[in-house]
Amino acid sequence: MKIAVLPGDGIGTEIVAEAVKVLNVLDLKFEMETALVGGAAYDAYGHPLPEATLKLAMDSDAVLFGAVGDWKYDKLDRPLRPEQAILGLRKNMGLFANFRPAICYEQLVGASSLKPELIAGLDILIIRELTGDIYFGQPRGRRIATDGHFPGAEEAFDTMRYSKPEIERIAHVAFQAARKRKAAGKEGRVTSVDKANVLETFQFWKDVVTEVGQQYPDIALDHMYVDNAAMQLVKEPKRFDVVVTGNMFGDILSDEASMLTGSIGMLPSASLNTKNQGLYEPSHGSAPDIAGKGIANPLATILSAAMMLRFSLNQPEAAQRIEAAVQKVLAQGLRTGDIWSEGTTKVGTAQMGDAVVKAL
Amino acid sequence: MKIAVLPGDGIGTEIVAEAVKVLNVLDLKFEMETALVGGAAYDAYGHPLPEATLKLAMDSDAVLFGAVGDWKYDKLDRPLRPEQAILGLRKNMGLFANFRPAICYEQLVGASSLKPELIAGLDILIIRELTGDIYFGQPRGRRIATDGHFPGAEEAFDTMRYSKPEIERIAHVAFQAARKRKAAGKEGRVTSVDKANVLETFQFWKDVVTEVGQQYPDIALDHMYVDNAAMQLVKEPKRFDVVVTGNMFGDILSDEASMLTGSIGMLPSASLNTKNQGLYEPSHGSAPDIAGKGIANPLATILSAAMMLRFSLNQPEAAQRIEAAVQKVLAQGLRTGDIWSEGTTKVGTAQMGDAVVKAL
Ligand SMILES: CC(C)[C@H](C(=O)O)[C@@H](O)C(=O)O
Ligand SMILES: CC(C)[C@H](C(=O)O)[C@@H](O)C(=O)O
Repeated sequence: MKIAVLPGDGIGTEIVAEAVKVLNVLDLKFEMETALVGGAAYDAYGHPLPEATLKLAMDSDAVLFGAVGDWKYDKLDRPLRPEQAILGLRKNMGLFANFRPAICYEQLVGASSLKPELIAGLDILIIRELTGDIYFGQPRGRRIATDGHFPGAEEAFDTMRYSKPEIERIAHVAFQAARKRKAAGKEGRVTSVDKANVLETFQFWKDVVTEVGQQYPDIALDHMYVDNAAMQLVKEPKRFDVVVTGNMFGDILSDEASMLTGSIGMLPSASLNTKNQGLYEPSHGSAPDIAGKGIANPLATILSAAMMLRFSLNQPEAAQRIEAAVQKVLAQGLRTGDIWSEGTTKVGTAQMGDAVVKAL
Repeated sequence: MKIAVLPGDGIGTEIVAEAVKVLNVLDLKFEMETALVGGAAYDAYGHPLPEATLKLAMDSDAVLFGAVGDWKYDKLDRPLRPEQAILGLRKNMGLFANFRPAICYEQLVGASSLKPELIAGLDILIIRELTGDIYFGQPRGRRIATDGHFPGAEEAFDTMRYSKPEIERIAHVAFQAARKRKAAGKEGRVTSVDKANVLETFQFWKDVVTEVGQQYPDIALDHMYVDNAAMQLVKEPKRFDVVVTGNMFGDILSDEASMLTGSIGMLPSASLNTKNQGLYEPSHGSAPDIAGKGIANPLATILSAAMMLRFSLNQPEAAQRIEAAVQKVLAQGLRTGDIWSEGTTKVGTAQMGDAVVKAL
């Protein structure tokens, strides 16, 4: 089992170090190899995703990813900016299925912006298509407008697009996830989010998801416009079970949903391709403002490592052990600054990682 | 002063009737003419935006709009669905500047999903570009993919685009609004929301807004990615003053923001063209589930009429009188069902309208 370890920028190195610590105390044999990515790779090699890093990722069973980005790279041309590394990995590895659980940890109900009764017990799964849509659609660029409101003016443009097989495969992923959740006591419902009232792409999305849904008579399917979904997440997040949507809407809604939970420092994510090769990273970003201070929360990364064990490395028991250990340290009252509240014990990044190791 | 009154579907007729009642007791001379729009127009004439309705709107100084849409039109071809009426009005009237205030009414703090301290006193303004972006960009449609992940497969596509003058004019609107708000004691800051890290269109957006911003040295400008904006609205909505963004992102963020306030039944909106001709409508939808029951909240529509008096009809005092009257009925404890809470008096749509009339 080969793992590519790509810590990246900002707090990335600190949080990934803790996840590696945790992986190392399991009784499993991994080959782990570390490489630079993002701004760190740009600084060293002039490119956020050097050939060698990409090759390492492609040749591994899974990638454990920290986070990329820092204000200081803002002035670079887009192809050289840290985020391009993550887009390049998604594209080259074909990581089309992004899993973003939005869970409210019982002990962290108070950290949510939402009233406790709206959020307690929340456990929804947002599935975002990750290699299509307007993120990668061609053509795109700048040109002189030949029609529209101001013919003759300079304009910029992008192409949104989805093909039938792209929609079908992410729909299957969503229905299958809902089925698994149903077996575990959840509702068993997929909400497909679109903007079919305005966009051709998402009318097609809706049609294709509906068609695929007929193969899953045990799973309920409903459709919701993206603007309404953004509202319903705020109003009544627990009404959702599995949400499936495109790359652009998924970017927005999954971030909104994670922030709603109050547990964003705790939320892992997984991005998979058709061979179950995957990239695992925390839902939060590189937080350059607190980098190097040893105070970042490593739990989302540790839980991402657990997802990696389950989805890409076929080690569900080890995954469960890690998840139980995280529950244990929370129950012990240990908290990093982002989730700390009166009456709990504030700890740093390494202490938190050590506590998880001990709980294992 | 000519007003086109377009009640539309669902609760539209009930709530617009109350706004008309309120307009009629002002000491002002309006010519008001009513026409069908949306599903109601489709039922009568086979089209959601009949020629006569469009002509009436174009020939008026302002349009007072209710809401459109009902499940029963879901099976119609897209060009015949009720929402097309609103898109057609925006396009034909050139209503490029959409104002969506997100205000938390003091008396309604408890109705928000958010904790009171995060939301009390909230008063932000979302300015959404309304005639460009992927809503109207050509080409769009279905075809056989020639490249991408599945060449040869059926695909659907849309075009996102913004030209320089389109961005410039909405940026000016935003900076001028921030300046007005600053004069009234607000911070005087514009947050431009983009996705410049992924989209050519929004890198251009960011560049052009930055350029326009140099003409407003008294107004602070910051930039935020749309995914982060969706999070910050939840985490700390009061950090915003004026938010400006494109049509698609604005659709999502303005709905998220209104729902956060807990006051969505109270929030008006205005959509203006370069001649200050405008369309005024509540931020909420047609709510077919409660249509005809006389329980809908007419206040967002009544406040939209106030915005109409201020922006398109040059009657700021009348606008203020209406706003004060609404404050008064709230202070009297009158509430429709959507904003009712223990200790306040539940009233219906017409009673609420009558109370505003009385307060005037
Ligand atoms: C960094 C950026 C390109 C990326 C995206 O938009 O997909 C990020 O926001 C994410 O969600 O992983
Ligand atoms: C009905 C729909 C076309 C419309 C939009 O997407 O603009 C609506 O959501 C709105 O925000 O006014």
